Amino acid sequence: MTTKPVFNDTLLNQLRWRYATKQFDPARKVSAADWKTLEETLVLTPSSFGLQPWRFIVVTDPARKEKLVPASWGQRQVADASHVVVFAIKKNLGSADVDRYLARIAEVRGVEVSSLNGFREVLTGFLAQPADAFDANEWASRQVYIALGNFLTSAALLGIDTCPMEGIEPARYDEILGLAEQGYQTVVVAAAGYRATEDPYAALPKVRFASEEVITHVE
Amino acid sequence: MTTKPVFNDTLLNQLRWRYATKQFDPARKVSAADWKTLEETLVLTPSSFGLQPWRFIVVTDPARKEKLVPASWGQRQVADASHVVVFAIKKNLGSADVDRYLARIAEVRGVEVSSLNGFREVLTGFLAQPADAFDANEWASRQVYIALGNFLTSAALLGIDTCPMEGIEPARYDEILGLAEQGYQTVVVAAAGYRATEDPYAALPKVRFASEEVITHVE
Repeated sequence: MTTKPVFNDTLLNQLRWRYATKQFDPARKVSAADWKTLEETLVLTPSSFGLQPWRFIVVTDPARKEKLVPASWGQRQVADASHVVVFAIKKNLGSADVDRYLARIAEVRGVEVSSLNGFREVLTGFLAQPADAFDANEWASRQVYIALGNFLTSAALLGIDTCPMEGIEPARYDEILGLAEQGYQTVVVAAAGYRATEDPYAALPKVRFASEEVITHVE
Repeated sequence: MTTKPVFNDTLLNQLRWRYATKQFDPARKVSAADWKTLEETLVLTPSSFGLQPWRFIVVTDPARKEKLVPASWGQRQVADASHVVVFAIKKNLGSADVDRYLARIAEVRGVEVSSLNGFREVLTGFLAQPADAFDANEWASRQVYIALGNFLTSAALLGIDTCPMEGIEPARYDEILGLAEQGYQTVVVAAAGYRATEDPYAALPKVRFASEEVITHVE
């Protein structure tokens, strides 16, 4: 890496520009090219062991988006935004998921699955930890939040607005999207699109604790 | 936003370039200017309600970094990397944290704290949910993973390598860094710096499930 791909100021300016958009402009859609890029950023999200215990449901159908509003405490962002991403975990991750992952490693890297037996043991041992020490669904949910963080930052860098939303009813989302029968479970949502010019929240100063209150240096 | 701040290809190229660095070059340090930028990206991380239930401990002291190795299953990244970020949650988040946050909102936005009473009720009600429905520490941990995702992506955009690490002993980290007595708890770690030229993992093809296996379109 000889030159810096992105200037420091560009990165910071975009993260300062980003805010949890309260009001999207329903008329403005994210272009197909930009959306394709954002989907690839989702796919590229790192996860522990590389296990990718997730599925991202991208909702653009107006009727379905409208159905999500009452499952989101009435928040209109899921209807007005251009695209809604539902971040879901694969429930009760187990050895079948490990095998699927190992098969993919073998395919991408051109190795024999049998050469990954040591890794299989690590992964199955990890997932088989006693329930009082390890909750596979909670672990997968944390991984999904890496994807959320990556997505919010990536969108901001492209000048695309987002609103991360925890204020939803996951079980109703699962029902509306038919996720439960596929073994997935809604965790969190991000609406994406463009802020309405009249959103009064856009102009409010961002509230963050002072740097010295959240960062400690051990130097 | 009239022009795009970052090109789609730049974003994707950096996310493809990123990998969980196994071997850092101990001689290469992240510049002060770049590190300052990355700390600001951490501060700017979004969180639910804006509560920022976290602290980021940045370890650069060689002796302390070395001490973290045995608390990290012997992984040398925490010693060899330029900077180590320990992502910690504020434990047992409660009304004192809410008040501290509201005071900060009042300060930044120039409003009376009393004008935020409605928001105080929402926040204290949220944190006071019955323990069987809501685990404040787990909730805070998920927020920390937003910061992790944001950090990994931001670093990649600046051409800085990282290694996210869950394979650590959080309680030993807390002890080495004196976190418990301050009410914080280690959740996850990211080492940051520059990959060693001899790291064989750098050249391996990235393994991700095919896009259609992780993304569903409802359109």
